[in-house]
Amino acid sequence: MSLKIKINEHYSSLKKNYLFSEIAARVGAYSEAHPEAKIVRLGIGDVTLPLSPVVVNAMKKAADEMGQAATFRGYAPDFGYDFLRNAIAAYYGKNGVTVSSGEIFVSDGAKSDVGNIVDILGENEILIPDPVYPVYLDSNLMSGHTVRFLKGNEQNGFLPLPEGLPEKPYIIYLCSPNNPTGAVYSKAQLKIWVDFANQTGSLIIFDSAYEAFIRSDAPHSIYAVEGAKTCAVEICSFSKTAGFTGTRCAWSVFPEALAAGDTKLSALWGRRQATKFNGVPYVVQRAAEAALTEEGIHQCRANIAYYMENARLLAAVLKEKGIWFTGGTDSPYLWLKCPNGMDSWEFFDFLLQKAQLVGTPGAGFGEAGEGYFRLTSFGSREATEEAVRRLNTLL
Amino acid sequence: MSLKIKINEHYSSLKKNYLFSEIAARVGAYSEAHPEAKIVRLGIGDVTLPLSPVVVNAMKKAADEMGQAATFRGYAPDFGYDFLRNAIAAYYGKNGVTVSSGEIFVSDGAKSDVGNIVDILGENEILIPDPVYPVYLDSNLMSGHTVRFLKGNEQNGFLPLPEGLPEKPYIIYLCSPNNPTGAVYSKAQLKIWVDFANQTGSLIIFDSAYEAFIRSDAPHSIYAVEGAKTCAVEICSFSKTAGFTGTRCAWSVFPEALAAGDTKLSALWGRRQATKFNGVPYVVQRAAEAALTEEGIHQCRANIAYYMENARLLAAVLKEKGIWFTGGTDSPYLWLKCPNGMDSWEFFDFLLQKAQLVGTPGAGFGEAGEGYFRLTSFGSREATEEAVRRLNTLL
Repeated sequence: MSLKIKINEHYSSLKKNYLFSEIAARVGAYSEAHPEAKIVRLGIGDVTLPLSPVVVNAMKKAADEMGQAATFRGYAPDFGYDFLRNAIAAYYGKNGVTVSSGEIFVSDGAKSDVGNIVDILGENEILIPDPVYPVYLDSNLMSGHTVRFLKGNEQNGFLPLPEGLPEKPYIIYLCSPNNPTGAVYSKAQLKIWVDFANQTGSLIIFDSAYEAFIRSDAPHSIYAVEGAKTCAVEICSFSKTAGFTGTRCAWSVFPEALAAGDTKLSALWGRRQATKFNGVPYVVQRAAEAALTEEGIHQCRANIAYYMENARLLAAVLKEKGIWFTGGTDSPYLWLKCPNGMDSWEFFDFLLQKAQLVGTPGAGFGEAGEGYFRLTSFGSREATEEAVRRLNTLL
Repeated sequence: MSLKIKINEHYSSLKKNYLFSEIAARVGAYSEAHPEAKIVRLGIGDVTLPLSPVVVNAMKKAADEMGQAATFRGYAPDFGYDFLRNAIAAYYGKNGVTVSSGEIFVSDGAKSDVGNIVDILGENEILIPDPVYPVYLDSNLMSGHTVRFLKGNEQNGFLPLPEGLPEKPYIIYLCSPNNPTGAVYSKAQLKIWVDFANQTGSLIIFDSAYEAFIRSDAPHSIYAVEGAKTCAVEICSFSKTAGFTGTRCAWSVFPEALAAGDTKLSALWGRRQATKFNGVPYVVQRAAEAALTEEGIHQCRANIAYYMENARLLAAVLKEKGIWFTGGTDSPYLWLKCPNGMDSWEFFDFLLQKAQLVGTPGAGFGEAGEGYFRLTSFGSREATEEAVRRLNTLL
């Protein structure tokens, strides 16, 4: 018996994502052949340090509230509790950016928001950086949209700008600090994008999920750039800021001034979320609120400092060896040019076989990633130090 | 400055949902004019009893695990932890239904799944009951789909069957026990739907969110009906079963045998979820697992029994007054025919002004709801008993 309904045929245009399964297969084969090998993994894109005490305590307190009739909470407000929207608005304020709590829509993840925002948009030409976080591309292919890639390379430091683009309205995805390249746009560079968007009537979808790793004076938010509120949505998350990858809380900013003709994008997004989403767990919203208290920020920043020390150690060995790379100073990621003209998978095999190190081949993030390689600083200090020793010997 | 991008124009075909704001406005106006009035609310569609102790304890234990390096969890598996998928499969087993854990996709809510499933489907004719939970309709209007209503009425007991429908493939939404009518399909009636779907190649989307309220021998799952695995997806939730409306956990079942030609629907849904969703919080999955232990089911069922006693009290007064209604025996909802030919809003005003009782006008759930009215059993016993006294006097 087969269904005779029509399915979404655009799904057949998606490439299977073999990246992480292929890595697992090659590492598995190597381990089997060399059972004594001590493999060190620098391919992790997930946090590894536990939740901060202030966050855990808030979550447990909220769980107790949910167990008492007087303090129990049912359905949450669709766009998040005011206590959390206010805390996020205040967090922006600390970076000198004004966002009102009514412009903030709390969600279960940046991935959800990045994927779901396609719902409220029509058929547009899409600009997506290459290499890139795969969700930007796949969520648009699922809707049959036409994608044009913004090629990253050594010349532009993997920070493409709107050069040579026909002047027309686009949906523009920007991620800064970038996953996978770790590159971060300066304020002047973002201003070029914001001006281009305002001139052409384009929408920027700005993914700032890694903003908490910024150490330089690069903007933490697109709204630090004048004019961004008429052209940009920002999507940010507690995943990397507070170690919430397994706890799930994020937000999107839809500025009041952001409109296509008479239609505010916030109204469309509000309708989408109220219809197809039912809010974030109360206990998680309390945990997220705690992460944004003074003590919470202090504890979360200590974790980020730990990762950034790993990044510094990795960056130091690459510098010493004269290997070109981006990232590592404002980002947990380092994106290096494979030495000796190796392609991404050749270098993967080289590192695995010669040093028992595992990273992520850049080619897995798009065509322009070929010949590059991603290392991450989410491992333990011990593993990172061991990796540095091995890289120092090998390269 | 205005965006020149194209937005999803289908959003403009959505009706604004004034139902609950209109109720709030009328109640507010009445309260202002009669500040001494003791208003009793029987319009609540949300649970009110706190989470069960076993659930709270599991959540707190999981929060502690998240605070320790050795037990911290980052990204969860996209489709849910095996411990929860296995627990859900075992829960089906208790109702005599075989579903494998690999067919279960854990999510943050039935509303999310009901809304998001439209993503993986193409342009089909949609069959939606009227009256109905508004998400079925709105999520399809957002994608520009053509909707045909299955009219509920006194004759069919608000349980429409596929009578007189052209034989072609449809997407068919069924909700049993139904929101808002409380009516529940028998196994024989569901068999008629399953046979129709298999004959026509239609897909049934079966919403069983209220299954835990069933007291009769009506099926708790569409898969209790032979043939359902080749034609039906089932969406269920912890919201009403375990009081999780503010805690957020649900699941969908995509049977292995459910395919359109060579394409398994589970593969499409898996790709959708892996791309646009990042899993349910670990602490919530542990809480949900606890709700399905023997002790958890026992505690959650005690809450449901409390609500069902409220429903029994409300049903008794309606019966005594000779008012026609559905629901109240296998559902927290009672759906009554407004007495004396009043329309839904007339009866709303009548109840509010004469007895200071608030319910939900049936017309708010669709055209076929006109002349009907929804009461719910989610209030406290005291409020329900007071409502029964007032109804007894008034009607």
